[in-house]
Amino acid sequence: MIGVLGSGIGGLTVVRELIKQLPEYDLIYLGDTARAPYGDKSPETVTRWALRNTGFLLNKGATLLVTACNTISSIASETVSKRYDLPVFEVITPGVERALSYSKKLMIGVIGTRTTIESGIYEEKIKQMSPEAKVYSMACPLLVPLVEEGWIKKPETTMIIKKYLHPLKVKQVDTLILGSTHYVRIKKIIQVKIGKRVNIVDTSEPVAAKVEGFLKDNKETERNLGKNGRYRFFVSDLTERDQKLAASIVKRNILLEKGEN
Amino acid sequence: MIGVLGSGIGGLTVVRELIKQLPEYDLIYLGDTARAPYGDKSPETVTRWALRNTGFLLNKGATLLVTACNTISSIASETVSKRYDLPVFEVITPGVERALSYSKKLMIGVIGTRTTIESGIYEEKIKQMSPEAKVYSMACPLLVPLVEEGWIKKPETTMIIKKYLHPLKVKQVDTLILGSTHYVRIKKIIQVKIGKRVNIVDTSEPVAAKVEGFLKDNKETERNLGKNGRYRFFVSDLTERDQKLAASIVKRNILLEKGEN
Repeated sequence: MIGVLGSGIGGLTVVRELIKQLPEYDLIYLGDTARAPYGDKSPETVTRWALRNTGFLLNKGATLLVTACNTISSIASETVSKRYDLPVFEVITPGVERALSYSKKLMIGVIGTRTTIESGIYEEKIKQMSPEAKVYSMACPLLVPLVEEGWIKKPETTMIIKKYLHPLKVKQVDTLILGSTHYVRIKKIIQVKIGKRVNIVDTSEPVAAKVEGFLKDNKETERNLGKNGRYRFFVSDLTERDQKLAASIVKRNILLEKGEN
Repeated sequence: MIGVLGSGIGGLTVVRELIKQLPEYDLIYLGDTARAPYGDKSPETVTRWALRNTGFLLNKGATLLVTACNTISSIASETVSKRYDLPVFEVITPGVERALSYSKKLMIGVIGTRTTIESGIYEEKIKQMSPEAKVYSMACPLLVPLVEEGWIKKPETTMIIKKYLHPLKVKQVDTLILGSTHYVRIKKIIQVKIGKRVNIVDTSEPVAAKVEGFLKDNKETERNLGKNGRYRFFVSDLTERDQKLAASIVKRNILLEKGEN
């Protein structure tokens, strides 16, 4: 089945898109809530947890993996796909392709966690595909805790978003990549603060499209996937708060299960 | 030697007090930065990590343990002291004793992480020692990320502190317990926002005093402690940012080491 790995609950924004685009495929999610958030952790630690958690998903029957977390995708996707023998889809490349297809001036802004931004991967991928592009990045470490607190519409959150986006606004980016799965939930305020003419790219829809395209072209992998529309959601730490947050992200009544890992 | 267990870097506020009050004693610190923060995690997960990390400190030679984190102290100190055969000092009781000694009206406020506040331990301990006391608690989940970001003097931080403290101010508490080791760093703003007449209790000094008292009364344990003034600082994840934060908390040029656990 399709395995989806998140650092916490945020990765469920990618699951929502996968279910929308590929509803019949069985899917298993693991959110590593016992060790989350990953955004400020070192590349070594993020890789260590990603390998461990991929092992969990393989044991449960995953035969294709989506790393539904920008921090994991930035740091560990390559190591994971080398270590384990299965196709791995990360969220960075599809987001970059989408951004480049939108952008007219090739002035691209990227926001994400500290570890994602410091990895430099967005800049690297954008310049690979479009060497003349200009990239402006900003680490926004407080946005994940604010979203997880549910402070979506609070004035303090708006002020903090404005502060983070100010340098990108000054550079007049025409496209902004949301380089964290959490940011989708504050997309509206981000749009207001960066300016209504700026294209905002959320990577969850393009990564789901990428998986869909891959399955059309790779019939053998596709045949091996269960198609009973069964979804299971594991977390390494289970709290009531995460249960509520998960249901509100996936927009259906899902049940989180504790995954012992 | 003296073992000190923190969930991240915040526990070093307790180390600073221990070094001040007991400078000659060898000390080993472990901050579980690879799994931090603990403040929103379930009691089961906090206990699991606390037991694992105590094992690490015992292997390194700890013969007395201070749980320098309110979340660990609230949830796991009792389990740790039952599982392992060593004296364990938690930060809750010394903070409560100090608060009761300060408070005239016995109107006590407590702020902390979600898991600490939901455990109800402060209320329980305060009422055990002083049944007529009134206790008002408030979980302040955003303060740890704000402090870790170094947003100590930012207007957004002040606004958020004001919002969290408002209900306690309305209740006219006369004493406020800082139920997270991180809050010491924003003590001044907390004092301004709660009111200058309110006593603020930071638990790090009283817990160090408690250890000092214990060592005076327990000569055998005291004899077994190294007294070369050697301090070692381990973290389960090592980043430059934590290295800087650690030095600024302990106020000396310390070197963090990666502790494989």
